[in-house]
Amino acid sequence: MNRWIHGAYLQMLDHIRIVLVNTTHPGNIGAVARAMKNMGLSDLCLVEPKLFPHEAATARASGATDILDRARVVPDLAAALEDCQLVVGTSARGRHIPWPVIDPHELGAIAAPLAGAAASTRVAILFGREDRGLTNDELHACHHHVHIPSVDSFSSLNLGAAVQVICYELRMAALDAQRADQAKPQWGTPWDIELADHAELERLFEHLERTLVGIDFLDPDNPRQLMPRLRRLLLRALPDKVEVNVLRGILTAVDKQVAGAKDKA
Amino acid sequence: MNRWIHGAYLQMLDHIRIVLVNTTHPGNIGAVARAMKNMGLSDLCLVEPKLFPHEAATARASGATDILDRARVVPDLAAALEDCQLVVGTSARGRHIPWPVIDPHELGAIAAPLAGAAASTRVAILFGREDRGLTNDELHACHHHVHIPSVDSFSSLNLGAAVQVICYELRMAALDAQRADQAKPQWGTPWDIELADHAELERLFEHLERTLVGIDFLDPDNPRQLMPRLRRLLLRALPDKVEVNVLRGILTAVDKQVAGAKDKA
Repeated sequence: MNRWIHGAYLQMLDHIRIVLVNTTHPGNIGAVARAMKNMGLSDLCLVEPKLFPHEAATARASGATDILDRARVVPDLAAALEDCQLVVGTSARGRHIPWPVIDPHELGAIAAPLAGAAASTRVAILFGREDRGLTNDELHACHHHVHIPSVDSFSSLNLGAAVQVICYELRMAALDAQRADQAKPQWGTPWDIELADHAELERLFEHLERTLVGIDFLDPDNPRQLMPRLRRLLLRALPDKVEVNVLRGILTAVDKQVAGAKDKA
Repeated sequence: MNRWIHGAYLQMLDHIRIVLVNTTHPGNIGAVARAMKNMGLSDLCLVEPKLFPHEAATARASGATDILDRARVVPDLAAALEDCQLVVGTSARGRHIPWPVIDPHELGAIAAPLAGAAASTRVAILFGREDRGLTNDELHACHHHVHIPSVDSFSSLNLGAAVQVICYELRMAALDAQRADQAKPQWGTPWDIELADHAELERLFEHLERTLVGIDFLDPDNPRQLMPRLRRLLLRALPDKVEVNVLRGILTAVDKQVAGAKDKA
Protein backbone atom coordinates (compact mmCIF):
# COMPACT_ATOMS: atom_id res chain seq x y z
CA MET A 1 0.00 0.00 0.00
CA ASN A 2 3.01 2.27 0.14
CA ARG A 3 2.40 3.38 -3.37
CA TRP A 4 -0.65 5.33 -2.23
CA ILE A 5 0.42 8.83 -1.51
CA HIS A 6 -1.67 10.75 0.98
CA GLY A 7 -5.11 11.44 -0.41
CA ALA A 8 -4.84 8.93 -3.23
CA TYR A 9 -6.60 6.08 -1.46
CA LEU A 10 -9.86 6.65 -3.26
CA GLN A 11 -8.09 5.73 -6.51
CA MET A 12 -8.42 2.10 -5.40
CA LEU A 13 -12.07 2.43 -6.40
CA ASP A 14 -10.94 2.79 -10.05
CA HIS A 15 -9.79 -0.83 -9.85
CA ILE A 16 -13.21 -2.19 -8.93
CA ARG A 17 -15.47 -3.24 -11.79
CA ILE A 18 -19.23 -3.47 -11.52
CA VAL A 19 -20.50 -6.23 -13.81
CA LEU A 20 -24.23 -6.42 -14.64
CA VAL A 21 -25.34 -9.73 -16.16
CA ASN A 22 -28.31 -9.76 -18.58
CA THR A 23 -29.99 -6.65 -17.22
CA THR A 24 -33.56 -6.35 -18.51
CA HIS A 25 -34.51 -2.74 -17.70
CA PRO A 26 -32.23 -0.02 -19.10
CA GLY A 27 -33.45 2.36 -16.37
CA ASN A 28 -31.67 0.15 -13.85
CA ILE A 29 -28.41 0.50 -15.78
CA GLY A 30 -28.76 4.27 -15.48
CA ALA A 31 -29.47 4.02 -11.74
CA VAL A 32 -26.35 1.86 -11.38
CA ALA A 33 -24.22 4.42 -13.23
CA ARG A 34 -25.48 7.19 -10.94
CA ALA A 35 -24.83 5.13 -7.79
CA MET A 36 -21.32 4.30 -9.00
CA LYS A 37 -20.45 7.91 -9.80
CA ASN A 38 -21.86 9.11 -6.46
CA MET A 39 -19.49 6.71 -4.72
CA GLY A 40 -16.45 7.31 -6.94
CA LEU A 41 -16.48 4.12 -9.04
CA SER A 42 -16.18 4.29 -12.81
CA ASP A 43 -15.66 0.83 -14.39
CA LEU A 44 -19.01 -0.57 -15.59
CA CYS A 45 -19.24 -3.73 -17.70
CA LEU A 46 -22.51 -5.02 -19.16
CA VAL A 47 -22.85 -8.68 -20.12
CA GLU A 48 -25.54 -8.97 -22.80
CA PRO A 49 -27.91 -6.24 -21.61
CA LYS A 50 -31.36 -6.47 -23.17
CA LEU A 51 -31.50 -2.78 -24.19
CA PHE A 52 -28.42 -0.56 -24.21
CA PRO A 53 -27.77 2.26 -24.95
CA HIS A 54 -31.29 3.49 -24.18
CA GLU A 55 -32.90 6.79 -23.25
CA ALA A 56 -34.25 5.34 -20.00
CA ALA A 57 -30.67 4.56 -18.93
CA THR A 58 -29.54 8.10 -19.73
CA ALA A 59 -32.51 9.62 -17.87
CA ARG A 60 -31.97 7.59 -14.67
CA ALA A 61 -28.19 8.19 -14.79
CA SER A 62 -29.07 11.80 -13.97
CA GLY A 63 -25.73 13.21 -15.13
CA ALA A 64 -23.58 10.09 -14.82
CA THR A 65 -23.57 9.72 -18.60
CA ASP A 66 -19.76 9.53 -18.65
CA ILE A 67 -20.04 6.18 -16.84
CA LEU A 68 -22.55 4.96 -19.44
CA ASP A 69 -20.42 6.24 -22.34
CA ARG A 70 -17.39 4.34 -21.06
CA ALA A 71 -19.34 1.17 -20.15
CA ARG A 72 -18.10 -1.94 -21.96
CA VAL A 73 -20.70 -4.28 -23.45
CA VAL A 74 -19.43 -7.88 -23.69
CA PRO A 75 -20.99 -11.09 -25.01
CA ASP A 76 -20.23 -13.33 -22.03
CA LEU A 77 -19.06 -13.37 -18.44
CA ALA A 78 -15.57 -14.64 -19.30
CA ALA A 79 -14.86 -11.47 -21.29
CA ALA A 80 -15.92 -9.37 -18.32
CA LEU A 81 -13.69 -11.21 -15.85
CA GLU A 82 -10.55 -12.29 -17.71
CA ASP A 83 -8.22 -9.67 -16.17
CA CYS A 84 -9.73 -9.83 -12.65
CA GLN A 85 -7.92 -11.35 -9.65
CA LEU A 86 -10.90 -11.32 -7.28
CA VAL A 87 -14.48 -12.04 -8.34
CA VAL A 88 -17.40 -11.59 -5.94
CA GLY A 89 -20.99 -12.47 -6.81
CA THR A 90 -24.08 -10.99 -5.18
CA SER A 91 -26.38 -13.72 -4.00
CA ALA A 92 -29.49 -14.53 -2.06
CA ARG A 93 -29.18 -17.00 0.77
CA GLY A 94 -29.40 -20.74 0.67
CA ARG A 95 -27.55 -22.03 -2.37
CA HIS A 96 -27.14 -25.76 -2.83
CA ILE A 97 -23.41 -25.87 -2.03
CA PRO A 98 -22.43 -23.37 0.66
CA TRP A 99 -19.82 -20.89 -0.57
CA PRO A 100 -18.00 -18.37 1.59
CA VAL A 101 -20.66 -15.67 2.14
CA ILE A 102 -19.68 -12.23 3.36
CA ASP A 103 -21.77 -9.16 4.07
CA PRO A 104 -21.22 -5.84 2.24
CA HIS A 105 -19.13 -4.44 5.10
CA GLU A 106 -16.80 -7.46 4.98
CA LEU A 107 -16.64 -7.09 1.20
CA GLY A 108 -15.36 -3.55 1.62
CA ALA A 109 -12.70 -4.70 4.07
CA ILE A 110 -11.51 -7.41 1.67
CA ALA A 111 -11.95 -5.86 -1.76
CA ALA A 112 -10.88 -2.24 -1.34
CA PRO A 113 -7.34 -2.94 -0.02
CA LEU A 114 -6.85 -5.73 -2.56
CA ALA A 115 -7.97 -3.41 -5.38
CA GLY A 116 -5.30 -0.97 -4.22
CA ALA A 117 -2.56 -3.58 -3.97
CA ALA A 118 -1.08 -3.05 -7.44
CA ALA A 119 -1.73 -1.00 -10.56
CA SER A 120 -2.81 -4.08 -12.50
CA THR A 121 -5.23 -5.47 -9.90
CA ARG A 122 -8.87 -5.70 -10.88
CA VAL A 123 -11.75 -6.72 -8.63
CA ALA A 124 -15.14 -7.60 -10.15
CA ILE A 125 -18.49 -7.50 -8.37
CA LEU A 126 -21.24 -9.36 -10.24
CA PHE A 127 -24.93 -8.49 -10.16
CA GLY A 128 -27.45 -10.85 -11.76
CA ARG A 129 -30.74 -10.55 -13.54
CA GLU A 130 -33.56 -8.50 -11.97
CA ASP A 131 -35.86 -11.50 -11.65
CA ARG A 132 -33.54 -14.38 -10.78
CA GLY A 133 -30.03 -13.14 -10.02
CA LEU A 134 -26.95 -15.11 -11.04
CA THR A 135 -27.01 -18.75 -12.19
CA ASN A 136 -25.20 -21.44 -10.21
CA ASP A 137 -22.48 -21.60 -12.88
CA GLU A 138 -21.94 -17.86 -12.60
CA LEU A 139 -21.81 -18.08 -8.81
CA HIS A 140 -19.29 -20.92 -9.03
CA ALA A 141 -16.91 -18.58 -10.89
CA CYS A 142 -16.71 -16.40 -7.77
CA HIS A 143 -14.19 -16.38 -4.93
CA HIS A 144 -16.78 -15.07 -2.49
CA HIS A 145 -20.50 -14.44 -2.43
CA VAL A 146 -21.79 -11.24 -0.88
CA HIS A 147 -25.27 -11.12 0.59
CA ILE A 148 -27.07 -7.90 1.54
CA PRO A 149 -28.88 -8.94 4.72
CA SER A 150 -32.49 -8.37 3.69
CA VAL A 151 -35.77 -9.61 5.14
CA ASP A 152 -36.27 -13.28 4.21
CA SER A 153 -39.85 -12.82 3.04
CA PHE A 154 -39.03 -9.75 0.90
CA SER A 155 -35.43 -10.22 0.01
CA SER A 156 -35.01 -8.92 -3.53
CA LEU A 157 -33.54 -5.42 -3.73
CA ASN A 158 -33.88 -3.18 -6.75
CA LEU A 159 -30.70 -3.56 -8.84
CA GLY A 160 -29.71 0.10 -8.51
CA ALA A 161 -30.30 -0.03 -4.75
CA ALA A 162 -28.15 -3.16 -4.39
CA VAL A 163 -25.29 -1.57 -6.34
CA GLN A 164 -25.68 1.56 -4.20
CA VAL A 165 -25.21 -0.41 -0.96
CA ILE A 166 -22.17 -2.30 -2.28
CA CYS A 167 -20.52 0.83 -3.70
CA TYR A 168 -21.22 2.67 -0.46
CA GLU A 169 -19.37 0.02 1.55
CA LEU A 170 -16.48 0.01 -0.92
CA ARG A 171 -16.18 3.78 -0.58
CA MET A 172 -16.43 3.58 3.23
CA ALA A 173 -13.58 1.03 3.18
CA ALA A 174 -11.44 3.27 0.97
CA LEU A 175 -12.12 6.19 3.30
CA ASP A 176 -11.21 3.98 6.27
CA ALA A 177 -7.90 3.11 4.59
CA GLN A 178 -7.29 6.79 4.00
CA ARG A 179 -8.06 7.63 7.61
CA ALA A 180 -5.81 4.90 8.93
CA ASP A 181 -3.16 6.42 6.65
CA GLN A 182 -0.77 3.66 7.46
CA ALA A 183 0.97 1.11 5.34
CA LYS A 184 -1.06 -1.80 6.49
CA PRO A 185 -2.76 -4.06 4.02
CA GLN A 186 -5.80 -5.16 6.03
CA TRP A 187 -6.08 -8.38 4.21
CA GLY A 188 -3.53 -11.14 4.29
CA THR A 189 0.19 -11.03 3.85
CA PRO A 190 1.83 -8.90 1.18
CA TRP A 191 2.26 -11.58 -1.46
CA ASP A 192 5.48 -11.94 -3.42
CA ILE A 193 3.77 -13.31 -6.53
CA GLU A 194 0.91 -11.89 -8.54
CA LEU A 195 -2.45 -13.57 -8.04
CA ALA A 196 -3.81 -15.72 -10.84
CA ASP A 197 -6.49 -14.03 -12.90
CA HIS A 198 -9.90 -15.40 -13.81
CA ALA A 199 -8.85 -16.73 -17.25
CA GLU A 200 -5.89 -18.65 -15.78
CA LEU A 201 -8.10 -20.16 -13.11
CA GLU A 202 -10.73 -21.17 -15.65
CA ARG A 203 -8.06 -22.89 -17.78
CA LEU A 204 -6.89 -24.68 -14.63
CA PHE A 205 -10.42 -25.90 -13.87
CA GLU A 206 -10.92 -27.05 -17.47
CA HIS A 207 -7.65 -28.98 -17.33
CA LEU A 208 -8.54 -30.45 -13.94
CA GLU A 209 -11.91 -31.62 -15.24
CA ARG A 210 -10.32 -33.29 -18.33
CA THR A 211 -7.76 -35.05 -16.17
CA LEU A 212 -10.36 -36.26 -13.67
CA VAL A 213 -12.37 -37.72 -16.54
CA GLY A 214 -9.15 -39.29 -17.87
CA ILE A 215 -8.45 -41.08 -14.60
CA ASP A 216 -12.09 -42.24 -14.37
CA PHE A 217 -12.67 -40.25 -11.20
CA LEU A 218 -15.24 -37.93 -12.75
CA ASP A 219 -18.11 -39.44 -14.73
CA PRO A 220 -19.21 -36.84 -17.31
CA ASP A 221 -22.69 -38.39 -17.32
CA ASN A 222 -22.98 -38.07 -13.55
CA PRO A 223 -20.66 -35.27 -12.47
CA ARG A 224 -22.54 -34.61 -9.23
CA GLN A 225 -21.03 -31.69 -7.28
CA LEU A 226 -17.39 -32.63 -7.80
CA MET A 227 -16.24 -29.66 -9.88
CA PRO A 228 -18.11 -27.04 -7.81
CA ARG A 229 -16.54 -28.53 -4.67
CA LEU A 230 -13.04 -28.37 -6.13
CA ARG A 231 -13.61 -24.84 -7.50
CA ARG A 232 -14.80 -23.69 -4.10
CA LEU A 233 -11.77 -25.18 -2.38
CA LEU A 234 -9.23 -23.65 -4.73
CA LEU A 235 -10.93 -20.27 -5.14
CA ARG A 236 -11.01 -19.90 -1.38
CA ALA A 237 -7.22 -20.01 -1.37
CA LEU A 238 -6.85 -17.17 -3.97
CA PRO A 239 -4.06 -19.05 -5.83
CA ASP A 240 -1.14 -17.07 -7.24
CA LYS A 241 0.32 -17.53 -10.74
CA VAL A 242 3.12 -19.88 -9.67
CA GLU A 243 0.72 -22.08 -7.72
CA VAL A 244 -1.56 -22.37 -10.75
CA ASN A 245 1.46 -23.33 -12.89
CA VAL A 246 2.46 -26.01 -10.38
CA LEU A 247 -1.04 -27.47 -10.41
CA ARG A 248 -1.15 -27.43 -14.23
CA GLY A 249 2.22 -29.21 -14.22
CA ILE A 250 0.89 -31.93 -11.92
CA LEU A 251 -2.15 -32.42 -14.15
CA THR A 252 0.08 -32.71 -17.24
CA ALA A 253 2.20 -35.33 -15.46
CA VAL A 254 -0.96 -37.29 -14.59
CA ASP A 255 -2.16 -37.01 -18.21
CA LYS A 256 1.11 -38.61 -19.35
CA GLN A 257 0.60 -41.55 -16.98
CA VAL A 258 -2.90 -42.05 -18.33
CA ALA A 259 -1.61 -41.96 -21.91
CA GLY A 260 1.10 -44.45 -20.92
CA ALA A 261 -1.46 -46.82 -19.35
CA LYS A 262 -3.66 -46.63 -22.45
CA ASP A 263 -0.74 -47.17 -24.89
CA LYS A 264 0.33 -50.28 -23.04
CA ALA A 265 -3.20 -51.64 -22.79
CA MET B 1 -31.43 -3.95 25.59
CA ASN B 2 -32.30 -6.82 27.89
CA ARG B 3 -35.95 -6.59 27.08
CA TRP B 4 -35.27 -8.08 23.66
CA ILE B 5 -35.84 -11.75 23.81
CA HIS B 6 -33.80 -13.98 21.56
CA GLY B 7 -34.43 -13.13 17.94
CA ALA B 8 -36.49 -10.03 18.65
CA TYR B 9 -33.78 -7.44 18.05
CA LEU B 10 -34.99 -6.67 14.58
CA GLN B 11 -38.22 -5.31 16.12
CA MET B 12 -36.25 -2.18 16.99
CA LEU B 13 -36.55 -1.33 13.30
CA ASP B 14 -40.33 -0.91 13.78
CA HIS B 15 -39.50 2.09 15.93
CA ILE B 16 -37.64 3.96 13.21
CA ARG B 17 -39.68 6.28 10.99
CA ILE B 18 -38.62 7.35 7.52
CA VAL B 19 -39.92 10.88 6.82
CA LEU B 20 -39.93 12.21 3.24
CA VAL B 21 -40.39 15.96 2.92
CA ASN B 22 -42.11 17.41 -0.20
CA THR B 23 -41.21 14.55 -2.50
CA THR B 24 -41.79 15.49 -6.15
CA HIS B 25 -41.68 12.13 -7.97
CA PRO B 26 -44.11 9.46 -6.72
CA GLY B 27 -41.84 6.75 -8.22
CA ASN B 28 -39.27 7.68 -5.59
CA ILE B 29 -41.83 7.11 -2.83
CA GLY B 30 -42.36 3.60 -4.19
CA ALA B 31 -38.61 2.94 -4.32
CA VAL B 32 -38.37 4.11 -0.69
CA ALA B 33 -41.15 1.73 0.36
CA ARG B 34 -39.38 -1.19 -1.32
CA ALA B 35 -36.01 -0.32 0.26
CA MET B 36 -37.66 -0.05 3.70
CA LYS B 37 -39.45 -3.38 3.39
CA ASN B 38 -36.27 -5.11 2.13
CA MET B 39 -34.49 -3.94 5.29
CA GLY B 40 -37.35 -4.60 7.72
CA LEU B 41 -38.60 -1.04 8.32
CA SER B 42 -42.29 -0.22 8.07
CA ASP B 43 -43.08 3.30 9.35
CA LEU B 44 -43.25 5.76 6.43
CA CYS B 45 -44.45 9.35 6.83
CA LEU B 46 -44.91 11.77 3.92
CA VAL B 47 -44.88 15.51 4.51
CA GLU B 48 -46.86 17.20 1.71
CA PRO B 49 -45.90 14.90 -1.17
CA LYS B 50 -46.65 16.38 -4.59
CA LEU B 51 -48.47 13.27 -5.89
CA PHE B 52 -49.61 10.46 -3.59
CA PRO B 53 -51.11 7.90 -3.86
CA HIS B 54 -49.96 7.39 -7.45
CA GLU B 55 -49.55 4.43 -9.79
CA ALA B 56 -45.83 5.22 -10.27
CA ALA B 57 -45.35 4.77 -6.52
CA THR B 58 -47.17 1.44 -6.55
CA ALA B 59 -45.17 0.22 -9.56
CA ARG B 60 -41.76 1.05 -8.08
CA ALA B 61 -42.75 -0.36 -4.67
CA SER B 62 -42.67 -3.75 -6.41
CA GLY B 63 -44.74 -5.53 -3.77
CA ALA B 64 -44.14 -3.22 -0.81
CA THR B 65 -47.64 -1.82 -1.17
CA ASP B 66 -48.40 -2.56 2.48
CA ILE B 67 -45.83 0.11 3.39
CA LEU B 68 -47.53 2.59 1.03
CA ASP B 69 -51.01 1.68 2.32
CA ARG B 70 -49.94 2.36 5.91
CA ALA B 71 -47.95 5.53 5.08
CA ARG B 72 -49.20 8.62 6.90
CA VAL B 73 -49.54 11.85 4.90
CA VAL B 74 -49.14 14.95 7.11
CA PRO B 75 -49.31 18.68 6.38
CA ASP B 76 -46.09 19.75 8.10
CA LEU B 77 -42.89 18.46 9.65
CA ALA B 78 -44.07 19.02 13.22
CA ALA B 79 -46.86 16.50 12.75
CA ALA B 80 -44.34 13.94 11.50
CA LEU B 81 -41.98 14.40 14.46
CA GLU B 82 -44.13 15.08 17.49
CA ASP B 83 -43.75 11.63 19.10
CA CYS B 84 -40.06 11.18 18.21
CA GLN B 85 -37.19 11.22 20.73
CA LEU B 86 -34.37 11.38 18.19
CA VAL B 87 -34.49 13.23 14.86
CA VAL B 88 -31.75 12.88 12.27
CA GLY B 89 -31.67 14.82 8.99
CA THR B 90 -29.88 13.72 5.83
CA SER B 91 -27.66 16.46 4.53
CA ALA B 92 -25.01 17.39 2.01
CA ARG B 93 -21.77 18.82 3.34
CA GLY B 94 -21.01 22.40 4.17
CA ARG B 95 -24.06 23.89 5.78
CA HIS B 96 -23.89 27.44 7.06
CA ILE B 97 -23.92 26.51 10.74
CA PRO B 98 -21.85 23.42 11.59
CA TRP B 99 -23.97 20.66 13.11
CA PRO B 100 -22.91 17.30 14.47
CA VAL B 101 -22.46 15.28 11.29
CA ILE B 102 -22.31 11.49 11.42
CA ASP B 103 -21.95 8.90 8.68
CA PRO B 104 -24.58 6.18 8.05
CA HIS B 105 -22.60 3.58 10.00
CA GLU B 106 -22.47 5.85 13.04
CA LEU B 107 -26.19 6.54 12.60
CA GLY B 108 -26.87 2.81 12.87
CA ALA B 109 -24.79 2.54 16.02
CA ILE B 110 -26.67 5.46 17.61
CA ALA B 111 -30.21 5.05 16.31
CA ALA B 112 -30.87 1.32 16.34
CA PRO B 113 -30.12 0.72 20.06
CA LEU B 114 -32.01 3.88 21.01
CA ALA B 115 -35.02 2.78 18.94
CA GLY B 116 -34.99 -0.45 20.92
CA ALA B 117 -34.66 1.22 24.30
CA ALA B 118 -38.38 1.29 25.11
CA ALA B 119 -41.69 0.41 23.50
CA SER B 120 -42.62 4.07 23.12
CA THR B 121 -39.36 5.25 21.58
CA ARG B 122 -39.51 6.66 18.07
CA VAL B 123 -36.57 7.72 15.92
CA ALA B 124 -37.15 9.80 12.77
CA ILE B 125 -34.82 10.04 9.78
CA LEU B 126 -35.64 12.96 7.45
CA PHE B 127 -35.04 13.03 3.72
CA GLY B 128 -35.52 16.27 1.77
CA ARG B 129 -36.64 17.28 -1.72
CA GLU B 130 -35.05 15.62 -4.75
CA ASP B 131 -33.60 18.90 -6.03
CA ARG B 132 -32.55 20.78 -2.90
CA GLY B 133 -32.78 18.58 0.17
CA LEU B 134 -33.91 19.91 3.53
CA THR B 135 -34.12 23.63 4.34
CA ASN B 136 -31.95 25.11 7.07
CA ASP B 137 -34.98 25.37 9.35
CA GLU B 138 -35.73 21.69 8.86
CA LEU B 139 -32.08 20.75 9.50
CA HIS B 140 -32.10 22.79 12.67
CA ALA B 141 -34.92 20.61 13.99
CA CYS B 142 -32.51 17.66 14.01
CA HIS B 143 -30.30 16.22 16.75
CA HIS B 144 -27.78 14.99 14.22
CA HIS B 145 -27.14 15.33 10.53
CA VAL B 146 -26.18 12.23 8.62
CA HIS B 147 -24.09 12.52 5.47
CA ILE B 148 -23.60 9.70 2.99
CA PRO B 149 -19.96 10.18 1.95
CA SER B 150 -20.35 10.83 -1.78
CA VAL B 151 -18.03 12.35 -4.34
CA ASP B 152 -17.94 16.15 -3.89
CA SER B 153 -18.46 16.89 -7.57
CA PHE B 154 -21.39 14.45 -7.93
CA SER B 155 -22.86 14.28 -4.47
CA SER B 156 -26.62 13.96 -4.90
CA LEU B 157 -27.94 10.43 -4.52
CA ASN B 158 -31.26 9.27 -5.85
CA LEU B 159 -33.81 9.47 -3.01
CA GLY B 160 -34.54 5.72 -3.04
CA ALA B 161 -30.82 4.93 -3.08
CA ALA B 162 -30.16 7.23 -0.12
CA VAL B 163 -32.97 5.61 1.90
CA GLN B 164 -31.57 2.19 0.92
CA VAL B 165 -28.12 3.00 2.33
CA ILE B 166 -29.54 4.40 5.59
CA CYS B 167 -31.96 1.50 6.10
CA TYR B 168 -29.16 -0.97 5.32
CA GLU B 169 -26.99 0.51 8.08
CA LEU B 170 -29.91 0.49 10.52
CA ARG B 171 -30.52 -3.19 9.78
CA MET B 172 -26.80 -4.00 10.08
CA ALA B 173 -26.80 -2.31 13.49
CA ALA B 174 -29.84 -4.31 14.63
CA LEU B 175 -28.19 -7.52 13.41
CA ASP B 176 -24.99 -6.54 15.24
CA ALA B 177 -26.97 -6.13 18.45
CA GLN B 178 -28.53 -9.52 17.90
CA ARG B 179 -25.18 -11.18 17.19
CA ALA B 180 -23.51 -9.59 20.18
CA ASP B 181 -26.05 -11.37 22.33
CA GLN B 182 -25.38 -14.80 20.89
CA ALA B 183 -22.46 -17.12 20.54
CA LYS B 184 -21.29 -15.52 17.36
CA PRO B 185 -19.65 -17.03 14.34
CA GLN B 186 -17.80 -13.81 13.46
CA TRP B 187 -16.73 -14.29 9.93
CA GLY B 188 -18.32 -15.91 6.99
CA THR B 189 -20.64 -18.78 6.58
CA PRO B 190 -21.49 -21.44 9.11
CA TRP B 191 -19.97 -24.37 7.30
CA ASP B 192 -22.06 -27.50 6.87
CA ILE B 193 -19.11 -29.85 7.25
CA GLU B 194 -16.49 -30.09 9.95
CA LEU B 195 -13.04 -28.79 9.05
CA ALA B 196 -10.33 -31.39 8.53
CA ASP B 197 -8.03 -31.83 11.49
CA HIS B 198 -4.26 -31.73 11.51
CA ALA B 199 -3.78 -35.50 11.27
CA GLU B 200 -6.11 -35.78 8.26
CA LEU B 201 -4.28 -32.99 6.52
CA GLU B 202 -0.90 -34.56 7.20
CA ARG B 203 -2.11 -37.88 5.77
CA LEU B 204 -3.34 -35.97 2.71
CA PHE B 205 0.06 -34.31 2.25
CA GLU B 206 1.89 -37.64 2.65
CA HIS B 207 -0.38 -39.23 0.07
CA LEU B 208 0.06 -36.25 -2.26
CA GLU B 209 3.83 -36.49 -1.97
CA ARG B 210 3.83 -40.25 -2.74
CA THR B 211 1.61 -39.74 -5.76
CA LEU B 212 3.71 -36.86 -7.10
CA VAL B 213 6.78 -39.07 -6.86
CA GLY B 214 4.83 -41.85 -8.60
CA ILE B 215 3.99 -39.65 -11.59
CA ASP B 216 7.61 -38.42 -11.77
CA PHE B 217 6.59 -34.87 -11.00
CA LEU B 218 8.46 -34.71 -7.69
CA ASP B 219 12.10 -35.83 -7.57
CA PRO B 220 12.82 -37.07 -4.01
CA ASP B 221 16.49 -36.19 -4.48
CA ASN B 222 15.65 -32.64 -5.51
CA PRO B 223 12.25 -31.78 -4.04
CA ARG B 224 12.84 -28.00 -4.11
CA GLN B 225 9.89 -26.03 -2.69
CA LEU B 226 7.12 -28.10 -4.24
CA MET B 227 5.54 -29.58 -1.10
CA PRO B 228 5.75 -26.36 0.93
CA ARG B 229 4.02 -24.51 -1.93
CA LEU B 230 1.21 -27.07 -2.11
CA ARG B 231 0.81 -27.13 1.67
CA ARG B 232 0.59 -23.37 1.78
CA LEU B 233 -2.04 -23.33 -0.98
CA LEU B 234 -4.27 -25.98 0.58
CA LEU B 235 -3.87 -24.85 4.18
CA ARG B 236 -4.90 -21.34 3.18
CA ALA B 237 -8.26 -22.76 2.07
CA LEU B 238 -8.93 -24.47 5.45
CA PRO B 239 -10.26 -27.66 3.79
CA ASP B 240 -13.17 -29.50 5.34
CA LYS B 241 -13.37 -33.29 5.84
CA VAL B 242 -15.31 -34.00 2.64
CA GLU B 243 -12.92 -31.92 0.58
CA VAL B 244 -9.96 -33.86 2.00
CA ASN B 245 -11.72 -37.14 1.14
CA VAL B 246 -12.35 -35.95 -2.42
CA LEU B 247 -8.67 -35.06 -2.82
CA ARG B 248 -7.59 -38.43 -1.38
CA GLY B 249 -9.97 -40.13 -3.82
CA ILE B 250 -8.40 -38.29 -6.75
CA LEU B 251 -4.91 -39.31 -5.59
CA THR B 252 -5.98 -42.96 -5.32
CA ALA B 253 -7.40 -42.83 -8.85
CA VAL B 254 -4.08 -41.39 -10.10
CA ASP B 255 -2.17 -44.13 -8.23
CA LYS B 256 -4.21 -46.77 -10.09
CA GLN B 257 -3.31 -45.23 -13.44
CA VAL B 258 0.36 -45.27 -12.47
CA ALA B 259 0.11 -48.95 -11.42
CA GLY B 260 -1.64 -49.72 -14.73
CA ALA B 261 1.12 -48.01 -16.72
CA LYS B 262 3.84 -49.88 -14.80
CA ASP B 263 2.10 -53.28 -15.07
CA LYS B 264 1.82 -52.91 -18.81
CA ALA B 265 5.43 -51.72 -19.16
